[in-house]
Amino acid sequence: MDITALFKISYGLYIIGAKDGAKNAGCVVNTVAQSTANPVTLTVCINKDNHTNAVIKATKSFSVSILSEHVNAEIIRLFGFTSSKDTDKFAQAPYSLTPSGLPYINNGVTGYLQCKVIDFIDNYTHTIFIAEVEEAENLTKEPPMTYAYYHSVVKGKTAKNAPTYVADEVASANADEAEPSPGAKVYKCAICGFEYSGGDVGFEQLPDDYLCPICRAAKEKFTKA
Amino acid sequence: MDITALFKISYGLYIIGAKDGAKNAGCVVNTVAQSTANPVTLTVCINKDNHTNAVIKATKSFSVSILSEHVNAEIIRLFGFTSSKDTDKFAQAPYSLTPSGLPYINNGVTGYLQCKVIDFIDNYTHTIFIAEVEEAENLTKEPPMTYAYYHSVVKGKTAKNAPTYVADEVASANADEAEPSPGAKVYKCAICGFEYSGGDVGFEQLPDDYLCPICRAAKEKFTKA
Repeated sequence: MDITALFKISYGLYIIGAKDGAKNAGCVVNTVAQSTANPVTLTVCINKDNHTNAVIKATKSFSVSILSEHVNAEIIRLFGFTSSKDTDKFAQAPYSLTPSGLPYINNGVTGYLQCKVIDFIDNYTHTIFIAEVEEAENLTKEPPMTYAYYHSVVKGKTAKNAPTYVADEVASANADEAEPSPGAKVYKCAICGFEYSGGDVGFEQLPDDYLCPICRAAKEKFTKA
Repeated sequence: MDITALFKISYGLYIIGAKDGAKNAGCVVNTVAQSTANPVTLTVCINKDNHTNAVIKATKSFSVSILSEHVNAEIIRLFGFTSSKDTDKFAQAPYSLTPSGLPYINNGVTGYLQCKVIDFIDNYTHTIFIAEVEEAENLTKEPPMTYAYYHSVVKGKTAKNAPTYVADEVASANADEAEPSPGAKVYKCAICGFEYSGGDVGFEQLPDDYLCPICRAAKEKFTKA
């Protein structure tokens, strides 16, 4: 079996938002898909290790911010590299509230959805949530960010000779000017190919429950590039 | 609620293949998404009115052909506009068999997957299948066909002044030379925007269980454009 055949499945990139009591929670996902038209329902797959997963199970509610190609890459780093257990991610991001009070990113997105969970299925490391879309609003006409665009074009914006382009891009708003540290150790996700170069934090220093910001694979799936 | 906000969710395009005894069955879908990395599982959402849905429920097996940008648009028409109940779609398409004997399209694709159903969930008009990927092979390095590409670029290849571009494109391998009939009535899918212009068959003449070839919406979701 050639696992790389699955790399050709197309996805977008989304921020899931949820409300843990008074605290906001959120994470990056790529698996949002509309499943029915009447009523409007969708599915989304979220790693069980993710704090946002537990919040959604408890509250049965979440928002989807549909990221556009214009999103600040720092937003993806923030929602992918840190945990809502420790960090109020939305406090560091431009956000508004849906009619029911769920946070959504309001800059660098095409729009948002407000969703109510109607069912969820345990699937090994992940939970597949099925939800009815209660509200939906377009915010811009910016083209949606695809997983392929994130890999091919966002990386293309950084220094051509930098092997650590994606990590540099998401680690800093000044990624175009960034140079990889001479001693930086690059770790590559065996599932999706995402490369982590460290930035201020070496890969070994990341917490054990670190997940690939793109495909949510566990830390153990990374190997030294 | 602005339903068009959901049009910004990104998808690829895929042909699902299944084996109904000695007969092949298949359909077009856009909702394939990997759900876990270990084991490798994916989800796919298929309309219950679709014959392929019943075949997969009975056999617990299906293939996924990952369409590339180079796929002949006729393949999409064939698998989207006709039913496997009446037509052996694979007899009219270039196909091979997976190791377990499931048909997959072998031209204009990036590769194929062979999948074993491990669970499925009833979701109104559709079934969400969860399956383990048993085999996966890359066949070409062609870029995967996305839903957005199909709408924006494939339609772009037809006559610029033809309001019926998509239907013309999928209705004929000679679409670039086709002109819409002066009296053609265009019907538009309210869900995904797909336009059906008739070709040889007027919209009213389509069977009651006709489904939008792109988003699988029912015939009643179409309105005269």
